[in-house]
Amino acid sequence: MAPDPTTPKAAAATRWATDLTYIEPNKILLRGYPLDELMGRVHFGEAIYLLLTGDLPSPSIGRLMDAMLVSFIDHGATPPPTMAARNAATTGASMRGCVAAGILGFGKYYGGDTLACRQRIDEGLAIARTGKSLADAATEVAEQLVLAGDIPPPGFGHRFHTRDPRAVRLLQIAHELEVDHEYTQFVRALEHALARHPALQGRTLPINIDGAVAAICGDVGLPPEVADALLIISRVPGLAAHAMEEQRRESPMRAIDPSGYTYDGPTERRVPDRRK
Amino acid sequence: MAPDPTTPKAAAATRWATDLTYIEPNKILLRGYPLDELMGRVHFGEAIYLLLTGDLPSPSIGRLMDAMLVSFIDHGATPPPTMAARNAATTGASMRGCVAAGILGFGKYYGGDTLACRQRIDEGLAIARTGKSLADAATEVAEQLVLAGDIPPPGFGHRFHTRDPRAVRLLQIAHELEVDHEYTQFVRALEHALARHPALQGRTLPINIDGAVAAICGDVGLPPEVADALLIISRVPGLAAHAMEEQRRESPMRAIDPSGYTYDGPTERRVPDRRK
Amino acid sequence: MAPDPTTPKAAAATRWATDLTYIEPNKILLRGYPLDELMGRVHFGEAIYLLLTGDLPSPSIGRLMDAMLVSFIDHGATPPPTMAARNAATTGASMRGCVAAGILGFGKYYGGDTLACRQRIDEGLAIARTGKSLADAATEVAEQLVLAGDIPPPGFGHRFHTRDPRAVRLLQIAHELEVDHEYTQFVRALEHALARHPALQGRTLPINIDGAVAAICGDVGLPPEVADALLIISRVPGLAAHAMEEQRRESPMRAIDPSGYTYDGPTERRVPDRRK
Amino acid sequence: MAPDPTTPKAAAATRWATDLTYIEPNKILLRGYPLDELMGRVHFGEAIYLLLTGDLPSPSIGRLMDAMLVSFIDHGATPPPTMAARNAATTGASMRGCVAAGILGFGKYYGGDTLACRQRIDEGLAIARTGKSLADAATEVAEQLVLAGDIPPPGFGHRFHTRDPRAVRLLQIAHELEVDHEYTQFVRALEHALARHPALQGRTLPINIDGAVAAICGDVGLPPEVADALLIISRVPGLAAHAMEEQRRESPMRAIDPSGYTYDGPTERRVPDRRK
Repeated sequence: MAPDPTTPKAAAATRWATDLTYIEPNKILLRGYPLDELMGRVHFGEAIYLLLTGDLPSPSIGRLMDAMLVSFIDHGATPPPTMAARNAATTGASMRGCVAAGILGFGKYYGGDTLACRQRIDEGLAIARTGKSLADAATEVAEQLVLAGDIPPPGFGHRFHTRDPRAVRLLQIAHELEVDHEYTQFVRALEHALARHPALQGRTLPINIDGAVAAICGDVGLPPEVADALLIISRVPGLAAHAMEEQRRESPMRAIDPSGYTYDGPTERRVPDRRK
Repeated sequence: MAPDPTTPKAAAATRWATDLTYIEPNKILLRGYPLDELMGRVHFGEAIYLLLTGDLPSPSIGRLMDAMLVSFIDHGATPPPTMAARNAATTGASMRGCVAAGILGFGKYYGGDTLACRQRIDEGLAIARTGKSLADAATEVAEQLVLAGDIPPPGFGHRFHTRDPRAVRLLQIAHELEVDHEYTQFVRALEHALARHPALQGRTLPINIDGAVAAICGDVGLPPEVADALLIISRVPGLAAHAMEEQRRESPMRAIDPSGYTYDGPTERRVPDRRK
Repeated sequence: MAPDPTTPKAAAATRWATDLTYIEPNKILLRGYPLDELMGRVHFGEAIYLLLTGDLPSPSIGRLMDAMLVSFIDHGATPPPTMAARNAATTGASMRGCVAAGILGFGKYYGGDTLACRQRIDEGLAIARTGKSLADAATEVAEQLVLAGDIPPPGFGHRFHTRDPRAVRLLQIAHELEVDHEYTQFVRALEHALARHPALQGRTLPINIDGAVAAICGDVGLPPEVADALLIISRVPGLAAHAMEEQRRESPMRAIDPSGYTYDGPTERRVPDRRK
Repeated sequence: MAPDPTTPKAAAATRWATDLTYIEPNKILLRGYPLDELMGRVHFGEAIYLLLTGDLPSPSIGRLMDAMLVSFIDHGATPPPTMAARNAATTGASMRGCVAAGILGFGKYYGGDTLACRQRIDEGLAIARTGKSLADAATEVAEQLVLAGDIPPPGFGHRFHTRDPRAVRLLQIAHELEVDHEYTQFVRALEHALARHPALQGRTLPINIDGAVAAICGDVGLPPEVADALLIISRVPGLAAHAMEEQRRESPMRAIDPSGYTYDGPTERRVPDRRK
């Protein structure tokens, strides 16, 4: 049979380029830095920033990265992605299969609000640039959201928390590090506008962790896709921990009721002072 | 139709427990620590260690965690998991789908050697505990590996590097931090035994990154499953970065030849001194 | 520590219902039919239709289901989902991991056009219902597609075939079975309108398999999500076959160039006549 | 920077071959048969057999394929893979993400017994070939399984059914079609040996669907990996149906209790007689 005609056509398309990592025998450069020199000198969060953006972060941005990554590392046993990972684990599936199943449990209603929230902020800031105050721009965006029935809006409200402690702390850290600018100011303005909107009386729609991450990533100049990636990266340890716990503590092939569990870990304790 | 008979049977099995994360409205405790207090105080690597093991690491172990996580963050454009992620990305798949596809590209020949390597080390140390020297135990294990045709052995050799710079540096850091004990000593002994084995003359079988991670996790008391999880966690940023680059730089639906690319990122540069 | 407060809240939400499959010990009813009675009496394609729609298909619709499922079963070694599956396979990953990686390689540019194409047809038919001819409605939709830069439109054109043999045959079978109605007529009208559009001279934009499946599913009353599911279901055997071949014929950890292969299977042969 | 040194090395490895599907513009050959000629002439089950084995099945084997594929198409709402798919669906994930998450929920305790069961049968048949009766060989294998603590053995017993109706019917169909030979005879002999074993009194360990599929695939000459693939292929429609039902009938982000549902579909009904 004649040579497959896909060959010449496809071949023409195969020259491509990457600027992430250079490899030659016994040498690995991550964005130009020798990987073995980075080891022991930068934290994982700084290396993640370097890989996703092309440069090492400033110390402030590095601390912010760590705070964002820590904030989303786990949210207990019941979120659907965690249940997906545990349902894979109970059949004896591999760690990688459980983690992948968990990641596939991110959808537009879970961990998927960052891109949409960023878009709303961009729209609000565009309105503000026409000469309006952030408060007026936020009122306008709130009105659009109500009219479109887009309530809760992406980045606001939480099915469980009335005040998302991760969002509060993340915005506080950004403020301390003086990296909160117009994106953060706009989400705060939008939170107020939603609280004052006549159609939303009785609703509690505080900034949630997706909204805080979207705003802060905007203020520090990270593209929307990076914010999206950060949420996935940060939750992988949580998915792995639940898969490991499922296989270590429970018997195989059990029916997993997300509301049938108790917490039997350590009671509340203080973070040791020696930590930076 | 009568109520489904699965109900009573399954219900009996649903009480279960978790000791990872406690959630109540407006409060999240990670292994007992308020998550918002951890934010800004611990690095992501420390939080990963806390979640996977139950305690915050000592400063030395914290630095080792970061070094292990950084070491495996990316290995260029060509490893099969990266190609799996890029092939998903070229069809316009979502970030989460690309990352999950990449994780599924970990198999026994890629990122899968940690568990098997740990088992070989445990066998070697068991022999040593019968009164033999580590060198003699390593010679015995090398002989078994050759007889079983298990060459390259898990944790040794690399299809590309003759001296894996990540493994060298990781073992050096462990030594500086004084956490290298019998597991590390045994993999070094096994590396020598393999080099001296008559049947392996002409083969280069240095300790690779899987072997170094397996040994160090053994020495610091981490269970084998944690080492397995660490490799997956550490590569997720790399998979995300390649998926993003594919969608940003290349046209959709291209045939991706793993050997058809050039690197066009920054040339080699030094890690700034200010870093710890 | 007090019982987890998620319990009562979550419990209230847990009553739910399914009308797909009833299970009791030693009995399984698929949409009401005993599964063991279906075995040996219905084809897999008929059982798929039953499960997805609630009823067994008529003989004509059953044959159409089989034709749709067969049409998309494989498309050679190079499509990105197949490459994702093969890249997982070369690392020694499990069959289920390879197949899942392949499915994740479906994106908006591959196997993802069915939903968008159905929407365009629905818009065209809505225009026709205002009293216009299908030809005029198609001309209007073609104009919108050109203005929106949505070229090639979902369901039209193919990166490889100038005349997709699967689409041609599927539409022919639908015609023979007399199940081609306004959806099919509209995609044909749109194909003509695209061919006549001044801005698209020199472009070849024939109905492709996604477009044919979208139209026929519309004409036989299947919801858009079912068409989406059918494409995934139908390709799983192809992904499995490529993963098996990769692990049987090739050495592990190879760099897989999608344009570097030759076909060495049987030369062209006729389908035996005895088949229905 | 010098050209990436991976290029020449990798390039040498890229010539490879496939014998599954030949593609040229406007032509697709599946194992040599024009795909468009197969459409309308062969059932999906026959096309799956053709793709996985290289030849069209005989009419008997074709019917057996359909029976195996139908047997595993769904098993209600509660199996862990189905729960994984539903947990992805409740977050608004895409159909392909839900199905992939479900497939990742196959593990050694679910859908993973086929390979291990086939191995036990092969061992039993090897014993029989030394001159022993199948009954004696089965008694020996049963003894080994009890000693190894491998109870329930792969392919036997079910957490829910005391007599798996799918296995019973599949073995009956194989008998009617006269394709049940030594593999099937051995699993029957092993079922009896397990029932008579003194250490297993009070246990019910009937042949389950995994065991029946493993045996029949052995008797008709299918490699073990094909049996493994068949179970995955056959369940994909079930996973898709549950994901669709979850998104159509339930509200997003719900806690899904596997034992909290009722069946509200059609009551038991007879399969229409006109079916072959």
